[in-house]
Amino acid sequence: MTDATTFAFPNAFRRGLPEPAARFAGLPKHNFVWGHNDPTQVPAEELAACAEKVLREKGHLLGMYNLGQAPQGYEPLRAFVAEKLKRRSGITTTAADIMLTSGSLQAMDLVNNVMLDPGDTVILEEFTYGGAITKVQKLGVQVVGAPLDEGGIKIDELDRILANLKTKNIKPKYIYTIPTVQNPTGSIMSLERRRQLIGVAKKYGVPIYEDECYADLVWTHERPPAIYSLDPSHVIHIGSFSKSLAPALRIGYIVADWSVLSRILSIKTDAGSGALEQMVVSEYVTDKFDEHVTDLTDALKEKLDVLVDALAQEFGTAAELFVPKGGIFLWLKLPDHVDVRKFTQTALAQGLAFNPGPEWSCNPDSAKSHMRLCFALPSVEQIRDGVAELARICHEETGVPERGRNVKRG
Amino acid sequence: MTDATTFAFPNAFRRGLPEPAARFAGLPKHNFVWGHNDPTQVPAEELAACAEKVLREKGHLLGMYNLGQAPQGYEPLRAFVAEKLKRRSGITTTAADIMLTSGSLQAMDLVNNVMLDPGDTVILEEFTYGGAITKVQKLGVQVVGAPLDEGGIKIDELDRILANLKTKNIKPKYIYTIPTVQNPTGSIMSLERRRQLIGVAKKYGVPIYEDECYADLVWTHERPPAIYSLDPSHVIHIGSFSKSLAPALRIGYIVADWSVLSRILSIKTDAGSGALEQMVVSEYVTDKFDEHVTDLTDALKEKLDVLVDALAQEFGTAAELFVPKGGIFLWLKLPDHVDVRKFTQTALAQGLAFNPGPEWSCNPDSAKSHMRLCFALPSVEQIRDGVAELARICHEETGVPERGRNVKRG
Repeated sequence: MTDATTFAFPNAFRRGLPEPAARFAGLPKHNFVWGHNDPTQVPAEELAACAEKVLREKGHLLGMYNLGQAPQGYEPLRAFVAEKLKRRSGITTTAADIMLTSGSLQAMDLVNNVMLDPGDTVILEEFTYGGAITKVQKLGVQVVGAPLDEGGIKIDELDRILANLKTKNIKPKYIYTIPTVQNPTGSIMSLERRRQLIGVAKKYGVPIYEDECYADLVWTHERPPAIYSLDPSHVIHIGSFSKSLAPALRIGYIVADWSVLSRILSIKTDAGSGALEQMVVSEYVTDKFDEHVTDLTDALKEKLDVLVDALAQEFGTAAELFVPKGGIFLWLKLPDHVDVRKFTQTALAQGLAFNPGPEWSCNPDSAKSHMRLCFALPSVEQIRDGVAELARICHEETGVPERGRNVKRG
Repeated sequence: MTDATTFAFPNAFRRGLPEPAARFAGLPKHNFVWGHNDPTQVPAEELAACAEKVLREKGHLLGMYNLGQAPQGYEPLRAFVAEKLKRRSGITTTAADIMLTSGSLQAMDLVNNVMLDPGDTVILEEFTYGGAITKVQKLGVQVVGAPLDEGGIKIDELDRILANLKTKNIKPKYIYTIPTVQNPTGSIMSLERRRQLIGVAKKYGVPIYEDECYADLVWTHERPPAIYSLDPSHVIHIGSFSKSLAPALRIGYIVADWSVLSRILSIKTDAGSGALEQMVVSEYVTDKFDEHVTDLTDALKEKLDVLVDALAQEFGTAAELFVPKGGIFLWLKLPDHVDVRKFTQTALAQGLAFNPGPEWSCNPDSAKSHMRLCFALPSVEQIRDGVAELARICHEETGVPERGRNVKRG
């Protein structure tokens, strides 16, 4: 850590690299960022038993790349994903048309890398996962945001956008949507709107790229069928165990027609994703998935309720909450005159981290008063303390909220 | 698997993709390709015990990305790598200057992606890991091969190449070398030559990029210090547990000055490599690494001896063997008039796979009579049967070997 030697070639790097990373300084004290899960909900004892069993029985297979199996990943886990998707998402598929990936981030990179050339255009939801935006922008791809309401993409607005692009001879490469627990708004797209979305996509000849990484964490434990299930020929579907089990287990998946998967496989040159994690997770989820996500979802809902209550106490009507239908984050909006970017760094310096709305928006300025708060990691006490701290910092920097806990702030 | 639905957008893909992958049809019967290890040497029982222990103790940490630690990977495993490198490779470093990756393939992608622009030039060893060649070629980078002898890179030839490039105002971005158990020739570069290599690299201002993924598997259990240990300011060092433990455990590492690592970290956007594998491997290697690699190396040497004997019996003097000083593969050369590319596919169709020399060479035609045979996966019986089959096919397609087992072939 002394950095006594220095690399002798400070100019050896390629052009256009991002800034060097800083040394890790620990997680912020009040941590409302990243898709962390609740560590107390990780079934550590059961994973331990599963790991021991599967390693004793099949550990020797680790001596072969991909365990000597298809490069799409551990077959029993792909079979479980197929079965889970049928039961929970209405999708009819088989292990043969599923590929396991190193988290859904690798799935996203692979889908982008088979589909996108520089200069292409894609449609994302106006507010969406920040990584989805930066990944395509790094590829030199144009982003067009489709407006959202509490039911997801506004279909008539999407139609207008596609019609307008068509007049310019632009056919987007895909429409990326998170229909079930949208990130960051937390909405769930109705079945009717899913059907309408396919209709518009077909009308303009644009594939749908469906991301359901939060779809197993719905408060009511009920959800409409996946868009993929309604028309597999028009959809690429991705999902993950990061949110339903644990994010440090890097297991995502892609479900798509073989004509797509075979393209993706040909560029997946990592010699396979981590097989041990796939074996252990397979052993666990085959019997325990439904029970686990039911318990986890209920535990997350309790944390959300605390967060909503704390925000009401600390911000009152100054914060408009988009209370999510599931998942691990809440999207909120402060009054229009507040620009959260102005105190993001100040807050971080004081040990409080949130996702500023502009990083989760195709049009950053349009979300300048929004922020995303992730609530799975902090304890109930930490949520209450963190929200109080957020209100204090926000008030100091912007004058909002004017009042907290029915006391006017000085 | 019926492919009843077909993706409706056959032209949705980007330009220049490789051919779609074929459905997995199982491993070839006679399998002399890939860096598989010996499945019977995977310490499955001990890994099972380690997994159970570490998951019970620390499994809850999986609820956080990177286990809530630095994004460079699980700290105890980085500390072990630092200690191992000091003890076995003479490298002085700390966990802070080590990054764990998803196999050394990710390490290679990361190093390339921070250093290389299209149009750049790199120097590779004339015969080298095929993936190292294809990865830089995909980036639009020019490859120049440095001639090898039984001691690794020929220093005077390298000097001439660099001088020649300098007259054209070309400064290569790095010199990539596998000094300890070179892939595919199996040589070990002497300490003296390592020093000379640094001297030439300094003379022309070119960094050395050292890949030691086989360095723990040396028959004599002795090896010269890593090039990195001789001058950390001029070297980026990568390594792996794929070969020393199991390839389906995707754990590689990069050792470099923080000014390099901080650049690499900034483009490692995968939210961390698989943490469970890192935890389990850390638990295992901390006590057992040396004992395990000693046993593994001895077992691999026995297989090599069988392979060498079988080749002598089946090919006699028709095959020139480059008997390796360690590792999992053997490089051989058939007579000049044999072009192994002419029967690679024929052999594969008959269930026998080998690495054709041209894929492991910066100048494919110069290795047209070479092939690489990996020997860790097949059993002793499979090695003997496979070599007999190889001789039969090779004879049918090329007339070589003329005689086998002292019997003239028909």
